Amino acid sequence: MPQAQYPSELLQRAVNEVSRLPGIGSKSALRLVLHLLRQDKMQVEALSESLLRVRNDIRYCSVCHNICDTEKCSICSNPNRDAKTVCVVENVQDVMAIEATLQFRGLYHVLGGVISPMDGTGPADLEIASLVERVSTQEVEEVILALSPTMEGDTTNYYIYRKLQDTGVKVTVIARGVAQNDELQYTDEATLGRALVGRVPFRG
Amino acid sequence: MPQAQYPSELLQRAVNEVSRLPGIGSKSALRLVLHLLRQDKMQVEALSESLLRVRNDIRYCSVCHNICDTEKCSICSNPNRDAKTVCVVENVQDVMAIEATLQFRGLYHVLGGVISPMDGTGPADLEIASLVERVSTQEVEEVILALSPTMEGDTTNYYIYRKLQDTGVKVTVIARGVAQNDELQYTDEATLGRALVGRVPFRG
Repeated sequence: MPQAQYPSELLQRAVNEVSRLPGIGSKSALRLVLHLLRQDKMQVEALSESLLRVRNDIRYCSVCHNICDTEKCSICSNPNRDAKTVCVVENVQDVMAIEATLQFRGLYHVLGGVISPMDGTGPADLEIASLVERVSTQEVEEVILALSPTMEGDTTNYYIYRKLQDTGVKVTVIARGVAQNDELQYTDEATLGRALVGRVPFRG
Repeated sequence: MPQAQYPSELLQRAVNEVSRLPGIGSKSALRLVLHLLRQDKMQVEALSESLLRVRNDIRYCSVCHNICDTEKCSICSNPNRDAKTVCVVENVQDVMAIEATLQFRGLYHVLGGVISPMDGTGPADLEIASLVERVSTQEVEEVILALSPTMEGDTTNYYIYRKLQDTGVKVTVIARGVAQNDELQYTDEATLGRALVGRVPFRG
């Protein structure tokens, strides 16, 4: 809808604001706003207020830098978690994804991104210094690197590995190979090649 | 992400509210909310306020029932528009789509939907009585039916046609046929059949 003429300034302003969100064009934004016009005032107030509150009142855990509502997140303050193992991830979604596996009882360290010269993200923009300090000052025995298997992830893995070398901590990286339930013939060459090179003894 | 464990209640509440929007699942909602966390507070405030204001302060034109900011919309109050021709449409987007063609200088009448027993929308839920009254009391010479060419649209067209019969107004319906620039071989049978039956004299 090029140069669409909105019948109302209020409508236009709302559509403009909504269409600033990633992946939402002006047509989708118009559809969403018109949907809200048909909802209860209370629901729109709840939406509006929750966005304001999450932006203004959200906090970041002083230990792992994950999003939380308090000074220290519920994972870091859980005495049943293994504080000797720290899993380094890119963002909140990755913490949630790993938690959903129920396979990890250690703590996290949320970098807030990966090193990406293309996007202008350097090591100083990430929580790398705080990771090094955490490993140096606390009793951490193993750091698990669980970044995405991309060039940026690999670069960041290597940077962190170098930074942690002096601390003597054990640094591991999550396994790479063919994905569970993927069909071999449709697996890309890079993944398949890496799975071959990285083969491990069969445990029957 | 079934039974996802959000690290923050504020985050969870915002994600829940956003995922109530049509077409936005919980993963997209999380992505949108995390995006907002990285934006200026002012931008989030502008979004939040614009949603609240559009819901609370929006008005509907007392003549054509289109969305507007005042008692009478800018089209209905424009003296250069032809008040004798009224185009009946389903919703705001349709007004915008027809305005974008620059082919129509008359006024509109926004029904707010079409008759749909499946969705529980009957004639009383739509602005049909107000259309009949408008045609009866004002100098309207032609009513153009511009609803979507669906079963619901056709039902609504027929219902309005019957309701307007006593007023003596001329009732027309927008042309149906093959779409501009569509390839004939890919046009569906119903459209193509209707285009054949509804053929018009060639104007060279």
